[in-house]
Amino acid sequence: MALKKKPVTGMKDILPAEMQIREYVMNQIKDTYRKFGFSQIETPAVEHIENLTSKQGGDNEKLIFKILKRGEKLDVAAATCEADVVDGGLRYDLTLPLSRYYANNSASLPSPFKALQMGSVWRADRPQKGRFRQFVQCDIDILGDPTSLAEIELILATTAALGKICPDNSFTVRINDRRILRGMAAYCGFPEDSYDQVFIILDKMDKIGMDGVKEELIQAGYDQDKVERYMGLFAQAAEGAEGVRQMGELLGQGEAKDACENLAGIMDTVLEASETKFALSFDPTLVRGMSYYTGTIFEVSMEGFGGSVAGGGRYDKMIGKFTGMETPACGFSIGFERIVTILLDNGFTVPHQEEKKAYLFEKGIDRKQLGQIIRQASEERKAGVQVLVAQMNKNKKFQKEQLQKEGYRQFQEFYKDALKK
Amino acid sequence: MALKKKPVTGMKDILPAEMQIREYVMNQIKDTYRKFGFSQIETPAVEHIENLTSKQGGDNEKLIFKILKRGEKLDVAAATCEADVVDGGLRYDLTLPLSRYYANNSASLPSPFKALQMGSVWRADRPQKGRFRQFVQCDIDILGDPTSLAEIELILATTAALGKICPDNSFTVRINDRRILRGMAAYCGFPEDSYDQVFIILDKMDKIGMDGVKEELIQAGYDQDKVERYMGLFAQAAEGAEGVRQMGELLGQGEAKDACENLAGIMDTVLEASETKFALSFDPTLVRGMSYYTGTIFEVSMEGFGGSVAGGGRYDKMIGKFTGMETPACGFSIGFERIVTILLDNGFTVPHQEEKKAYLFEKGIDRKQLGQIIRQASEERKAGVQVLVAQMNKNKKFQKEQLQKEGYRQFQEFYKDALKK
Repeated sequence: MALKKKPVTGMKDILPAEMQIREYVMNQIKDTYRKFGFSQIETPAVEHIENLTSKQGGDNEKLIFKILKRGEKLDVAAATCEADVVDGGLRYDLTLPLSRYYANNSASLPSPFKALQMGSVWRADRPQKGRFRQFVQCDIDILGDPTSLAEIELILATTAALGKICPDNSFTVRINDRRILRGMAAYCGFPEDSYDQVFIILDKMDKIGMDGVKEELIQAGYDQDKVERYMGLFAQAAEGAEGVRQMGELLGQGEAKDACENLAGIMDTVLEASETKFALSFDPTLVRGMSYYTGTIFEVSMEGFGGSVAGGGRYDKMIGKFTGMETPACGFSIGFERIVTILLDNGFTVPHQEEKKAYLFEKGIDRKQLGQIIRQASEERKAGVQVLVAQMNKNKKFQKEQLQKEGYRQFQEFYKDALKK
Repeated sequence: MALKKKPVTGMKDILPAEMQIREYVMNQIKDTYRKFGFSQIETPAVEHIENLTSKQGGDNEKLIFKILKRGEKLDVAAATCEADVVDGGLRYDLTLPLSRYYANNSASLPSPFKALQMGSVWRADRPQKGRFRQFVQCDIDILGDPTSLAEIELILATTAALGKICPDNSFTVRINDRRILRGMAAYCGFPEDSYDQVFIILDKMDKIGMDGVKEELIQAGYDQDKVERYMGLFAQAAEGAEGVRQMGELLGQGEAKDACENLAGIMDTVLEASETKFALSFDPTLVRGMSYYTGTIFEVSMEGFGGSVAGGGRYDKMIGKFTGMETPACGFSIGFERIVTILLDNGFTVPHQEEKKAYLFEKGIDRKQLGQIIRQASEERKAGVQVLVAQMNKNKKFQKEQLQKEGYRQFQEFYKDALKK
């Protein structure tokens, strides 16, 4: 029986040219994050099905690749539902596994703990251009730090990494706080149990604009005057740290005002300390979908990339789901696949590559001659050159073209009559 | 509901100290292999269940983590067997996916193609010390090269990588050929249909010794005189290339003699060209379990590591299972997890690490003071230092001890009264 040549639906084989870019981007990110004191860790690809379906993952829980029980535990004929045959699943993100990891290992980790994770995640999403069912996430998280130092370091580290990968693209960090979102809704008189719906509509701002949001809110049955007041708040909000402080004054005492003061402070310190150039702006319409966020939220958009290239926020409640003890947590995730796709589409070439040389030898050389060629290759490899040794094909021109695609620029040819016998 | 803290059975969370060693070993291997002209590639973790269960994987096919169908394709209640509910599985090695990859992409790849893969594989084996259900494999393969240049380059590259990782351990490459194994069995009069059983018993040499093998062969019902003759062959075999040539003379004309000439030539050239020191010996008792090997086979053992640290061989028939057209192939795999485990157990520390410094600041400093500290950190990070900024904990001594475990050797403390206001 002939076997299937194509990869499974929605997953891809990675060719050498893309792999070079992936490795380059990963190394840039790792190097930068290590400088900021993040420690790389890893969790298994497979997680307990109970953890994956514990309502932490929102819609991603509908997209889990589930793993069949094994051995005696499995009885397919007697099974009536999925739960009877499944005991694990592939992780759909790196945040839930990180929370489990921290709960399991915190005694062996420094506090606060600065984690760096780069790994594949799997979602059985409908495949489409640029969206795959296996893709890499790059996350940094700070666990156990309740202060805004966490947010500041996450923003500085992520922008430094993006600045290194794409030094010629300008980018913007938009920032908000879930408590400000709630404070603004409260200020306009929306009832607390409607916040989720209001924010889902607000989150469409990018697609349908301010007028569209206004219309949908009214269609959803909210009072015209509340909606008008809400729209007015967005219209008057200013982008800088001063804008955040003014919003705080307006919203009055309490949680929302504290959140504004905190956010303005983060913005001041980030702008003061950053070595990378980017715009930092308060965006009171920023919602971010994940339901686990509890405080600050941020998103980075880059000129020419369309949509966000990184995002994150504070999630102070999730780790407590494992430990029973609340642990402050804050994370930032870079959209690795999006960046790689755009670099590939733009014909990006990896800078400072090692010199690549191909030795092509004539068919029929003897063993001694081959030894001579390989010894020469060893010398060059020792000196840092990447050397490929291969027999000349009949179609030498095509062979060279193929090798040029792999980055080989220098060719040396060896003929049997010219080599020592 | 409290969630499960432990990873799933047989898989592990990787702590920062181990992760540093893993990254170091991976980078050493990648750097070495790239110098030899291997191109890194990647295949998805999930493969078609039909490919995984196509009898290429031997016993590993019993250990597959299988993936449940999704959506309308799944009807658990109506299902009567595994095949009804499963459409994929996690790969159990990197060789089968590579064969599929090559069949799928050969038009875009140079010929011969030199592939480097580093990735996780999964086997639902019984968990035990040092054996996990998710582990990393590091493979290099040369596809499309029928000549012994493939074997030579694979041995040179693998020994160069091992020599870089463990410069102080001496190691031995043992080498044999499946055709010599068959030739020796034929020479002693074993019937062809008994070879598999004979080789399975021979493969126990490491555990039960020459006498044990002899006894088991006789118990299995083979003639005493055939077994004696077989044992005599092993006893007289010499280790070097000359030994292989003598064996060839003894076995007479045909496939086995050609295989001996070829193997002796590989040994000559490898010893001539190698920059790394190691012993290279002909081992006519080397079998290697995988049923797909067709020619040369090799295994590396390292002083102090017990058992093999790398192994591989030629498998000229597997790719043809996908394409219908035979493609010569030869590969070498480093036992990544075994090497990491032993380095960890021996208290190995990664050489040439970046300088790591921790800034600890007193609780209660104001935002300006924090900005000042972060700016100082930015300066040091730019100069290549890895700087962690953290608030001083109440138990400063314990905090420093934890950080020392992560490799922080320098500490700088910041007190609010000493900082500018």
